[in-house]
Amino acid sequence: MNMELVLRQYKEQIEQQLPAYIESLQAPETIKEAMLYSLQAGGKRIRPLLLLSTLHAFQKPVHIGMPTACALEMIHTYSLIHDDLPSMDNDDLRRGKPTNHKVFGEANAILAGDALLTYAFQVVADAEAISSDVKVRLISELAKAAGPEGMVGGQVADLEGEGKTIHLQQLEYIHRHKTGKLLQYSVRAGAILGEATEKQLTLLTAFADHLGLAFQIRDDILDIEGDEQKIGKKVGSDIENHKSTYPALLTLDGAKRKLRDHMKEARTLLHEVGVDASLLHYICDIVETRDH
Amino acid sequence: MNMELVLRQYKEQIEQQLPAYIESLQAPETIKEAMLYSLQAGGKRIRPLLLLSTLHAFQKPVHIGMPTACALEMIHTYSLIHDDLPSMDNDDLRRGKPTNHKVFGEANAILAGDALLTYAFQVVADAEAISSDVKVRLISELAKAAGPEGMVGGQVADLEGEGKTIHLQQLEYIHRHKTGKLLQYSVRAGAILGEATEKQLTLLTAFADHLGLAFQIRDDILDIEGDEQKIGKKVGSDIENHKSTYPALLTLDGAKRKLRDHMKEARTLLHEVGVDASLLHYICDIVETRDH
Repeated sequence: MNMELVLRQYKEQIEQQLPAYIESLQAPETIKEAMLYSLQAGGKRIRPLLLLSTLHAFQKPVHIGMPTACALEMIHTYSLIHDDLPSMDNDDLRRGKPTNHKVFGEANAILAGDALLTYAFQVVADAEAISSDVKVRLISELAKAAGPEGMVGGQVADLEGEGKTIHLQQLEYIHRHKTGKLLQYSVRAGAILGEATEKQLTLLTAFADHLGLAFQIRDDILDIEGDEQKIGKKVGSDIENHKSTYPALLTLDGAKRKLRDHMKEARTLLHEVGVDASLLHYICDIVETRDH
Repeated sequence: MNMELVLRQYKEQIEQQLPAYIESLQAPETIKEAMLYSLQAGGKRIRPLLLLSTLHAFQKPVHIGMPTACALEMIHTYSLIHDDLPSMDNDDLRRGKPTNHKVFGEANAILAGDALLTYAFQVVADAEAISSDVKVRLISELAKAAGPEGMVGGQVADLEGEGKTIHLQQLEYIHRHKTGKLLQYSVRAGAILGEATEKQLTLLTAFADHLGLAFQIRDDILDIEGDEQKIGKKVGSDIENHKSTYPALLTLDGAKRKLRDHMKEARTLLHEVGVDASLLHYICDIVETRDH
């Protein structure tokens, strides 16, 4: 199996399906354009790819996971639109393109985020080829991962920590919630759809926790060592903004060591699941060595 | 049956349950406070009351409808928080109290809205005593009513119509979506939980459409004839803001006539459902004559 090719094909399928979901909406053109603009602004599609790769490990066809994979990308995209707003991070550019509110205005950007978040639940609820019991579980866990006990909670904690010196424990709370819970959900959703045993689900949940923290540490390292062209934003902005990061708390070498430790744990857990998780192992390699 | 008493008891139960849902969250205190602040800012609770009153017509116990009723109020509340933001209506007061962003800041207000919207779906998904098939239907319809094809779409259309002369048809599009779809959902959810036949569901959907438009017309009339003390905001603000309203398009008398016509239709449809819908009839009386 050529893993790079499989993941590229998954990515293409996701990027075909996302606009199809938006085009099918009976809604004012402005909101559809604003939703589509940010959905099509590129990105690694790491969440849907994690879901589909986990599903692959359980030998299930892609179409079973596609609605939930797209829902995940919608929720991730809504969070970026709201994060970029003037009252939040006040970013004018995202991946080298003007942010949603710069193009559509602040009111429409807020509404486009609201629309993507809401529609994500509709997409899962309306998915074909999934039982109602599984849908209810997927929806409940998605809301928990994205809401006040997950991503939104992490964002609030992040805002509260701004400009303050925080400890490693608080930094991990922020990352586990702000980005970790949704990454973890991506793997769990794939496993649930793949009919994993509870034991496998537990192992994959722990795997995803390590992967999520590693993902964030790599982000912090790239902000110091990265290539501005490749990451699409200014390097050194974390230091400039006095942001608490792993390198700031652990030194750059310490952060690199922590990244390696998390990836080692992640890979060990993944082996214990007892399935052919070669796509997930490949994603581990990407997370550890990515340059953007 | 003392209908005023029954509705008051429903309202008390809703207002007990809402904070219980928030308190059970494992989340930063700030976000819980911000969510609770707006949930407890008062209001008529018309959406949950419509749901429970419809359920009552089908002789089902309250507890079956309570999670979805609370989810409705969470989604309504999130929409008010986001509507009040500086980039939207820029309101400092809501029901005589400072708006969410005035108390918690704009970033937390956006996040509190996001959190309420997300949590609403979790509350329905985790509801007890409802089958998974029914939950999936409730969630799908809730997302459709609240999202780009419903409330959010109406809000976008409303923003686009600002400062322009719009026709009655456009005004009805805005109201049918901005407020109508969620009101309609309230009745539909009660009917679905009450195991209504498809025929009854169709009648109740049409009933709720008329009720929703009537509700909005009454709102517009109150902005001209209302008592500032009772409605909790300045009278005449629609005219001041050059807002398109029913009285502006139809004259005040024409708007009153249209209100009566919609209520007559609503009541006729309600009779055809063939259940004891006395609570819903009582709500019709309130909507037609309310002074706040």
